[in-house]
Amino acid sequence: MNNYRIESDSFGDLKVPVDKYYGAQSARSLINFPIGIETMPKPLIRAFGIIKSSAARVNMNVGALDSIIGEAIVKAASEVMAGKHDDHFPLSVWQTGSGTQTNMNANEVISNRAFEILGGTIGNSSFSNTSRVHPNDHCNMSQSSNDTFPSAMHIAAVEEIVHSLIPALHHLHDALETKEQEFSKIVKIGRTHTQDATPLTLGQEFSGYAAQVKNGIRRAEAVLPALYSLAQGGTAVGTGLNSPAGFDQKVAKEVALVTKLPFVTASNKFEALAAHDAIVEASGALNTLAVSLMKVANDIRFLGSGPRCGIGEISLPENEPGSSIMPGKINPTQCEALTMVAAQVMGNHVTITIAGSNGHFELNTFKPVMIYNLLQSIRLLADSSQSFTDRCVIGITANESHIAKLLNESLMLVTALNPHIGYDNATKIAKKAHQDNSTLLQAAVALELVSEEDFKKWVVPTEMLAPK
Amino acid sequence: MNNYRIESDSFGDLKVPVDKYYGAQSARSLINFPIGIETMPKPLIRAFGIIKSSAARVNMNVGALDSIIGEAIVKAASEVMAGKHDDHFPLSVWQTGSGTQTNMNANEVISNRAFEILGGTIGNSSFSNTSRVHPNDHCNMSQSSNDTFPSAMHIAAVEEIVHSLIPALHHLHDALETKEQEFSKIVKIGRTHTQDATPLTLGQEFSGYAAQVKNGIRRAEAVLPALYSLAQGGTAVGTGLNSPAGFDQKVAKEVALVTKLPFVTASNKFEALAAHDAIVEASGALNTLAVSLMKVANDIRFLGSGPRCGIGEISLPENEPGSSIMPGKINPTQCEALTMVAAQVMGNHVTITIAGSNGHFELNTFKPVMIYNLLQSIRLLADSSQSFTDRCVIGITANESHIAKLLNESLMLVTALNPHIGYDNATKIAKKAHQDNSTLLQAAVALELVSEEDFKKWVVPTEMLAPK
Amino acid sequence: MNNYRIESDSFGDLKVPVDKYYGAQSARSLINFPIGIETMPKPLIRAFGIIKSSAARVNMNVGALDSIIGEAIVKAASEVMAGKHDDHFPLSVWQTGSGTQTNMNANEVISNRAFEILGGTIGNSSFSNTSRVHPNDHCNMSQSSNDTFPSAMHIAAVEEIVHSLIPALHHLHDALETKEQEFSKIVKIGRTHTQDATPLTLGQEFSGYAAQVKNGIRRAEAVLPALYSLAQGGTAVGTGLNSPAGFDQKVAKEVALVTKLPFVTASNKFEALAAHDAIVEASGALNTLAVSLMKVANDIRFLGSGPRCGIGEISLPENEPGSSIMPGKINPTQCEALTMVAAQVMGNHVTITIAGSNGHFELNTFKPVMIYNLLQSIRLLADSSQSFTDRCVIGITANESHIAKLLNESLMLVTALNPHIGYDNATKIAKKAHQDNSTLLQAAVALELVSEEDFKKWVVPTEMLAPK
Amino acid sequence: MNNYRIESDSFGDLKVPVDKYYGAQSARSLINFPIGIETMPKPLIRAFGIIKSSAARVNMNVGALDSIIGEAIVKAASEVMAGKHDDHFPLSVWQTGSGTQTNMNANEVISNRAFEILGGTIGNSSFSNTSRVHPNDHCNMSQSSNDTFPSAMHIAAVEEIVHSLIPALHHLHDALETKEQEFSKIVKIGRTHTQDATPLTLGQEFSGYAAQVKNGIRRAEAVLPALYSLAQGGTAVGTGLNSPAGFDQKVAKEVALVTKLPFVTASNKFEALAAHDAIVEASGALNTLAVSLMKVANDIRFLGSGPRCGIGEISLPENEPGSSIMPGKINPTQCEALTMVAAQVMGNHVTITIAGSNGHFELNTFKPVMIYNLLQSIRLLADSSQSFTDRCVIGITANESHIAKLLNESLMLVTALNPHIGYDNATKIAKKAHQDNSTLLQAAVALELVSEEDFKKWVVPTEMLAPK
Repeated sequence: MNNYRIESDSFGDLKVPVDKYYGAQSARSLINFPIGIETMPKPLIRAFGIIKSSAARVNMNVGALDSIIGEAIVKAASEVMAGKHDDHFPLSVWQTGSGTQTNMNANEVISNRAFEILGGTIGNSSFSNTSRVHPNDHCNMSQSSNDTFPSAMHIAAVEEIVHSLIPALHHLHDALETKEQEFSKIVKIGRTHTQDATPLTLGQEFSGYAAQVKNGIRRAEAVLPALYSLAQGGTAVGTGLNSPAGFDQKVAKEVALVTKLPFVTASNKFEALAAHDAIVEASGALNTLAVSLMKVANDIRFLGSGPRCGIGEISLPENEPGSSIMPGKINPTQCEALTMVAAQVMGNHVTITIAGSNGHFELNTFKPVMIYNLLQSIRLLADSSQSFTDRCVIGITANESHIAKLLNESLMLVTALNPHIGYDNATKIAKKAHQDNSTLLQAAVALELVSEEDFKKWVVPTEMLAPK
Repeated sequence: MNNYRIESDSFGDLKVPVDKYYGAQSARSLINFPIGIETMPKPLIRAFGIIKSSAARVNMNVGALDSIIGEAIVKAASEVMAGKHDDHFPLSVWQTGSGTQTNMNANEVISNRAFEILGGTIGNSSFSNTSRVHPNDHCNMSQSSNDTFPSAMHIAAVEEIVHSLIPALHHLHDALETKEQEFSKIVKIGRTHTQDATPLTLGQEFSGYAAQVKNGIRRAEAVLPALYSLAQGGTAVGTGLNSPAGFDQKVAKEVALVTKLPFVTASNKFEALAAHDAIVEASGALNTLAVSLMKVANDIRFLGSGPRCGIGEISLPENEPGSSIMPGKINPTQCEALTMVAAQVMGNHVTITIAGSNGHFELNTFKPVMIYNLLQSIRLLADSSQSFTDRCVIGITANESHIAKLLNESLMLVTALNPHIGYDNATKIAKKAHQDNSTLLQAAVALELVSEEDFKKWVVPTEMLAPK
Repeated sequence: MNNYRIESDSFGDLKVPVDKYYGAQSARSLINFPIGIETMPKPLIRAFGIIKSSAARVNMNVGALDSIIGEAIVKAASEVMAGKHDDHFPLSVWQTGSGTQTNMNANEVISNRAFEILGGTIGNSSFSNTSRVHPNDHCNMSQSSNDTFPSAMHIAAVEEIVHSLIPALHHLHDALETKEQEFSKIVKIGRTHTQDATPLTLGQEFSGYAAQVKNGIRRAEAVLPALYSLAQGGTAVGTGLNSPAGFDQKVAKEVALVTKLPFVTASNKFEALAAHDAIVEASGALNTLAVSLMKVANDIRFLGSGPRCGIGEISLPENEPGSSIMPGKINPTQCEALTMVAAQVMGNHVTITIAGSNGHFELNTFKPVMIYNLLQSIRLLADSSQSFTDRCVIGITANESHIAKLLNESLMLVTALNPHIGYDNATKIAKKAHQDNSTLLQAAVALELVSEEDFKKWVVPTEMLAPK
Repeated sequence: MNNYRIESDSFGDLKVPVDKYYGAQSARSLINFPIGIETMPKPLIRAFGIIKSSAARVNMNVGALDSIIGEAIVKAASEVMAGKHDDHFPLSVWQTGSGTQTNMNANEVISNRAFEILGGTIGNSSFSNTSRVHPNDHCNMSQSSNDTFPSAMHIAAVEEIVHSLIPALHHLHDALETKEQEFSKIVKIGRTHTQDATPLTLGQEFSGYAAQVKNGIRRAEAVLPALYSLAQGGTAVGTGLNSPAGFDQKVAKEVALVTKLPFVTASNKFEALAAHDAIVEASGALNTLAVSLMKVANDIRFLGSGPRCGIGEISLPENEPGSSIMPGKINPTQCEALTMVAAQVMGNHVTITIAGSNGHFELNTFKPVMIYNLLQSIRLLADSSQSFTDRCVIGITANESHIAKLLNESLMLVTALNPHIGYDNATKIAKKAHQDNSTLLQAAVALELVSEEDFKKWVVPTEMLAPK
């Protein structure tokens, strides 16, 4: 590594690649945490850009920050927000539990880039660059990692939920609702306990899936208010020490302006630093969504099982060769990706739960693992819902003749006789048909419990689809 | 077992204890599921009483059910609701996944008790008793286990949340808020990363706990709307087969009347039978609450650690001898009970999540395990919150002199110097004081970075508690 | 409550029912922990009987305990071990996290019962009864709750695993292996991704289940060595203070004699009190077992789905009426009970994991919740495996004609052509047959890729069951 | 994308970058699964190289594979094994649940690279390249994704456990044992329930941590036998169709040769494809390890809490600036990284558990998510254990004077009086000292329960460290 410069922090000098904006504390973190391959998620880095620009604006407005430096910080932070400097954020998720080093990464990148914007040259002498734009005194002015990182967690989570997850769920919901309409006249056998039951339409079955996803959207939306609350302004322990009065509300307003989302300042900053219950709550909504999607995807793959030896009531789109050994095999691969995602989200939820419960005193120090898991869950649910919709749901077709065949063979149509001959007599008919491998009509007549005429009047699948 | 009578179902005769109202299907379930010691929770049995009386009223109103039989059912079901027949509900949680046998348990107990109310004698001959009040044809009229059991799940969960959990949380919240006021003037050292940080008041610290519990109440309330939705009226697969039109809405209205809670009919019955996302959602709120309580209880036991070798900033009530070997030992036992409950709730949530995700087609068949865990979580959280409040929080006292001693020794008061001398210089002072084991003032003056006068003006813990 | 006597501890006097052997500390615990309905599991109470009798024997042998008192303690403790005094152990799981109060419950019951055996009358004056047999000085001699409770945890867990779980698993394994033999000639279609695949025998399919259970037995056995290690002798913090040298090994030997199981003293007592990794490890084995049983039970219910509209390759025993509304309905209820148990065990494992990770310093204070969950998991797995075997597996029958029909319709038999015509050509045949809804033979001949003669020679399901 | 070539599979033509060895099925997977950013882990890709080379060798040996083609495959696969073609494996974890597309990715890369080795040019015309080396007929010869992928899972897991995790744990264990020795004479107060208890040495305390890690090594080693069992040879459904007799054992032997690890063929191939209980078992061991490390890291950060307002018995190495706002702050960041990893591993375990339980029939289709999580857990535990050892444990120092001060103030030294004056009298002394804020000696003498001389003889911390 020849192309480096020397940067310093209170622990001494360190080599930093010349083409990187970050400084000594980031470089030190890279050395101290050679753990795993997971780096801080991009939506979180973007959120730091949002916060740093917003804080600089407020600091300028209250007269605490020189406007030349402040404007340079705003510009540099806006570039971070736009993703232009993602390569300068190499830190591991597995660092300090406050995310301090990532906050310093942001401060260092922005201060150096701001210095460059102001015409400076990021240079050899320690701290020389920061004689103009200091990572702590300017970029981090009125802030602490302890309020900045949780604010970034909330901003990143909200943006991902609002801009990725909810649209993907609407897309899935609409596709399921379209199928509900398309299949509204197809009467099929119901299945309870995986055993034959009374009939319903394939459309009604899909309406249940659509309802689950609709509720999933409601649940995702319901976690937003708690996430709109920002810790910013609490600084080190929640008191707001070293921030100007009103900083918290002004910053939240700035963030709301930049993101066009209704962020507000948290009503209790002590809670906002020491606990991340809002993140656990959000993960809980994703967990419920994962449960819903697991159910829907399982149903669809079982209903589409076959093509010849399964249930085979529906056919799924054929997207790719399914086997390296079985020629012509087609598999419900989108269901598989979605259910794997569901399993991941459920496990991530446990990680977030454990992490959320282990905070002590004024600071929860499991912040990075919490936001890493939450953002992964959001992204995976969003992406897989989108893919599942486009490459599976939309192309599902009903195998109507097979559906009709199964329906007519079922014994549970006998339920329609309950109001006429009572549960006990109906039971005798069903049992006899099952034992004799006969039809219900044959058994009913043989037992002299119903006449053929009545049977045909009373047992009509298309009239078994609603209350009367 | 001499004191038995013979009851029958479609599988044949079975002996039933003469002093029990239940019939053959309950007795058969006892034989078929000798698993564990967990029986169906009482709040669920009560909910069955509510449903059966409500359904009977609606069935009478629409003219489907003879009013003599119907009124007897209402009376018998009301007794079940009141807990008078709890001994007649012996079935295991580990039975069929639809809870059918518990629905039949309710039908059998109520039909036999109703028959008795009508002057009948529960007797020897099979089905003779049910010639008047039939468990299926009368008690289960217009119903299926598949809509009754999930309705009972929702009713039981709502009643427990509304009548037990939320009041207990309010009680806890109020106690914490009282402490927040009581401790509002006590300035103490903050701790982040478990290390000394800038100061806050003990009241501010408790305000964070109060805020967590307040949000817990909000979260508990937020799950109620989905739980107010009742599956009743969906019957076997969601279509409402064999129920009169409008039955669903009328039953929900009756349940609302009886419980004085705003139950409504579910907008999609297929979802309501096939999935229990509302239960998973509710469990998610309890999980977040468990996370909050774990944090609060951990803080309180660590702040109260000692009495002489720990942090010792607060003292907890002394409730009992703490050790069988160490004389005079006192332990934070209420914190321990509460954190054990929190661990239980988090695990129960995983059980509920897994169970909720494994439904297939028209019916989720993990109903009993889901409601067993949910009701356990609610009850444990309610009881332990109440006990923790009464036997711990209310009696907490502050050790003011020890708090003051710690505060004055802390190095992190140096943070107040940042705005005056910059982060880097302040760092030098803190490091020097740490190395020399001196005070900050001594280090500051020795380094000639701050005068004694300025130091005393700038570093004032009581002025470090808020923005300026 | 008129029928009470007064007992005292260092906190004062308390009323105790006259018909109970327990004393003030137990009574105080009942007052202080009105949480939930879960009481300490019976196998744990039995284990306390084992420990107290063993400790008394060793204390007598080393001359520390008067032999008249000691023998009375041994007798009383043996009665506890035999379950004769279960009614005298009413304490909640949700008490102090060390289980101290249950240790004192044992000490109190045994000291009072021993005093009675010696001719004393449990009486009015505080501590008078204990002038002869003291709960702490005699019953708890050389012990602390901190080593006694974890020892009881291990003893209870081992006894339940060895005497209940492993035999039940052997029973299940043998039944599955019997089916493996019975079904060894029935060739059926395989299913991968829930889609038709190449054939195997139904016996081969069941051999997979048997192998899973066999490995489950191995896993259950593998956790025993760590559980055989007893904390006893560590006393309060692991040092063994107030116990005679060699006490640890002698007690373990006594426990081994009483239980006929190879208990030994833990090699590191500090670990044995402060952490319960052996319990987490044991729960991990149960978790894997739950995973196995979930898979097996799911397969069996899907293979048995129908009776007319599902896969229907096997029939399960018909044990009870399956529906309150659908006459004649039969459901895979044993599979449902087993899979509900599996979900419970997986959640319990998370509770145990969280509890195990939250120990601090010299003592983990989540002991009761850990052992409560572990013993519930063991019992549920044992009971449900037994019931599933007896009421489901043993009675499974194969629907051979339906199996043969499905097999012959499958397209995946085409795989047998790979070695002869290559994967790409075989794919063309499968795709054509699928599109034309024709047989593979028809498609193969139509495409002129295989002659009818070759096809019949190469595509023979009974020759597709093994390598060649 | 101008620089592409056309490749084909049975679904048609696709563009593939000219500089990539992969073919149409990989390219199609990239299109069909735009989900997340997680790609297949490198140790898994390496394992595919091991398998493909081993299979080619066996296929040549049994005369099934032309040796010119076979040797080229061996060479190409060996390059994959060495990590030379990692850039050619871009597929997502969230693909088909069998991992078929990654198996085909391996087949495509190796067949194209082998063709190149043989002098061919990977070209324009579909399948032309594969006229010499076919991905299915040659590279996948005698194999299916269904046996290849699980074999790769096992090989990757074993290599990571053996070569990364276990050495890291030994490193940690040795460091803890060194501290155990170093601190063997430092007597300190013990803490149970986070409250003062009887004394032990700091070395004894560390011996508990060392014991936990030692058991962790044992647990990691104990899962290896099940992972050494390879599914290879089961092909599509476990029967071994299209593989030569003995292929399974020969391949396992080859893998053992290449890896120098004792791999064997699985005794039941049906289980090996349909279930991944061995992966769940392995994850269970990691989960227990995470529990252990969470405990150790928590203890160390609490013992090191301060520097002035915490427990402060030990000091941790100072590795970096700890705060962006609090100058000079130092935090236990290695503990934080380690505990975050522990939370991740516990959640991953739930994901693996859920995924493992959801297999159906002949194939578990959650393979990628299972191995992704397992390999992440292994790597994170290995890396963080190493880092925690090097940057924390090794540098821990004891603050002996503070330890001595705390020890001498403790009330629980009173326990040493039990054998002399009984538990009840000792309690009185402790209670009095606590109330009076006096020393034990003062209280003992004041109560006239012990003489000063006896007290000083009996209460000697250094003699309270072991049984007598």
